[in-house]
Amino acid sequence: MFYTSANIRDIIAEILAAKKEQGGVKSLYFVGCGGSLGALYPAKTFMERECAGIKSALISSNEFVHSTPRDFGKNSIICLACHKGNTPETIAAARLGREKGAAVIVLTWLEQSEIVEHSDYTVLYSFDASPDHLAGDIDYAGEKTMCALLVAVELLQQTAGYENYEKFLAGREMITTVIRKARAHVAQRALAFAQEYKDDSVIYTMGSGAGYGAAYMESICIFMEMQWLDSSSIHTGEYFHGPFEITDVNRPFMIQVSEGSTRPLDERCLKFLRTYAKRIEVLDAKELGLSVIDPAVVDYFNHSLFNNVYPIYNHALAEARKHPLPTRRYMWKVEY
Amino acid sequence: MFYTSANIRDIIAEILAAKKEQGGVKSLYFVGCGGSLGALYPAKTFMERECAGIKSALISSNEFVHSTPRDFGKNSIICLACHKGNTPETIAAARLGREKGAAVIVLTWLEQSEIVEHSDYTVLYSFDASPDHLAGDIDYAGEKTMCALLVAVELLQQTAGYENYEKFLAGREMITTVIRKARAHVAQRALAFAQEYKDDSVIYTMGSGAGYGAAYMESICIFMEMQWLDSSSIHTGEYFHGPFEITDVNRPFMIQVSEGSTRPLDERCLKFLRTYAKRIEVLDAKELGLSVIDPAVVDYFNHSLFNNVYPIYNHALAEARKHPLPTRRYMWKVEY
Repeated sequence: MFYTSANIRDIIAEILAAKKEQGGVKSLYFVGCGGSLGALYPAKTFMERECAGIKSALISSNEFVHSTPRDFGKNSIICLACHKGNTPETIAAARLGREKGAAVIVLTWLEQSEIVEHSDYTVLYSFDASPDHLAGDIDYAGEKTMCALLVAVELLQQTAGYENYEKFLAGREMITTVIRKARAHVAQRALAFAQEYKDDSVIYTMGSGAGYGAAYMESICIFMEMQWLDSSSIHTGEYFHGPFEITDVNRPFMIQVSEGSTRPLDERCLKFLRTYAKRIEVLDAKELGLSVIDPAVVDYFNHSLFNNVYPIYNHALAEARKHPLPTRRYMWKVEY
Repeated sequence: MFYTSANIRDIIAEILAAKKEQGGVKSLYFVGCGGSLGALYPAKTFMERECAGIKSALISSNEFVHSTPRDFGKNSIICLACHKGNTPETIAAARLGREKGAAVIVLTWLEQSEIVEHSDYTVLYSFDASPDHLAGDIDYAGEKTMCALLVAVELLQQTAGYENYEKFLAGREMITTVIRKARAHVAQRALAFAQEYKDDSVIYTMGSGAGYGAAYMESICIFMEMQWLDSSSIHTGEYFHGPFEITDVNRPFMIQVSEGSTRPLDERCLKFLRTYAKRIEVLDAKELGLSVIDPAVVDYFNHSLFNNVYPIYNHALAEARKHPLPTRRYMWKVEY
């Protein structure tokens, strides 16, 4: 049986009912690899900030398998993201979850895949499968990032209660419209970005808060993996404690200025970059329309916004560099 | 009043006694910036893996201040690292801890500093203050990383109990000798490393598990901050999910092969690098003598080993590049 984001409330209710006599749910682990790990980042941040009573962590699949938290078991939920359901490390983590009696929620895009055998609840998420993710006609509220967030939000709401629950659901109703407008808004500047940076060999991304995962994904999945550029994602709270010494008039930075509680961190970096760097691309969530979402919950929507605006830039950059995004030298080609 | 690592057991006992009537200790936050954040990483990993009942997180100071976990308060301990006690973001986090009734433990090197005013327990850690940290005559078991680990270990031991407590303390007794031998062991190869990489503009670090923080620190505090090189720290569990596509015969990688549970992740990357990269520097904890520590606890000592072997390389690289480690263009020089 397959589920969608619309079923997550019921899935959590069912897990809580089933675990009630065994002592309830005491931990929630988010597990994945690469882009699928980054996509779970907002949910991890949500648990860290909003939830007192349930242990939570975000762990890369193979580390989770080899260095498993000792409490992982019948009082746990493991929420895994696995795009095509065939990532061996994530399959191993799901299998471990079943062996240990945890409730296993798999977020995936494909119905037919190996990981489904090791899943209690397989949630099919929405995904823009068009070339370079340009179509933009999907329901962004059903993406894997939002599914993982819903797992966290519902778990809190159905246990201790989440005071901003209705506001969160209202924000979710708005995110698709915000993203579509934002993607159109950056279309022209993405072309200019591509021309400006097409001959560079390094590009940094920057971000903070629940949106940091989007900066991580852009750095490792696009710049490194799909464009073979040197890159790193710098947390804007960390920039002044080391990384900022590399700043000069030549080095390119793509900075997420988020909406919500960590915006001051991002703005402080932007001010510095505007003084000492010259080549910066700013993704400002306020300018991109995210402020329609209630301030009490807006933090958790930055990731979806940034992560879906990046493809417009990525397509333009790949075209200008004549390096198509699907190009690989190792992935799917050699043994590793 | 000032404490050292020898007092951490008593500090935790005192906090637990004082908090008993208020509901006990329910969360432990590790907070710092840059290198001081990285130094807390093994303690975060320890809590994640070993401790079921107490919430824990590692958060950069300014993010902690602007996006504070809602449960942070009288049932919390905040453990901050602040080398000279004058980092404004970390001082703000300590002040917030006092305001909210949390127990505030400050790990610092200097007795006289601003942060001490906002601390309940100020622990002075050992630190190699010689030029480029070359003297190597300190008690490595008293460093900030080990102090933070002791906070975590003692909190677990004195609440639910930690089955490997005695093994951990035995490992701590051994770490200084291991580190001193390892530093001598790499002296010659560090000179060769410096000659090989002195003209490069990018160097990656790689690591996993509780030792990942050392790879992060080497990347942001040494390569970026002190050598103005492009860099990123790649988690060996994440390498094959994006970053590995940048691998070629020219790009330099400095890889930590840890001892303990995540060693298979590191070895898998090393095997790939040996096939497709040519310029790799291997820090192997096994070769460097860490295996004398019990396998049940050895994971948590990788950071101290790697972090104290790096200075031998860093000094050699700085000499070869004629770029002294204390050189800065922004830090302490401009407003930010």
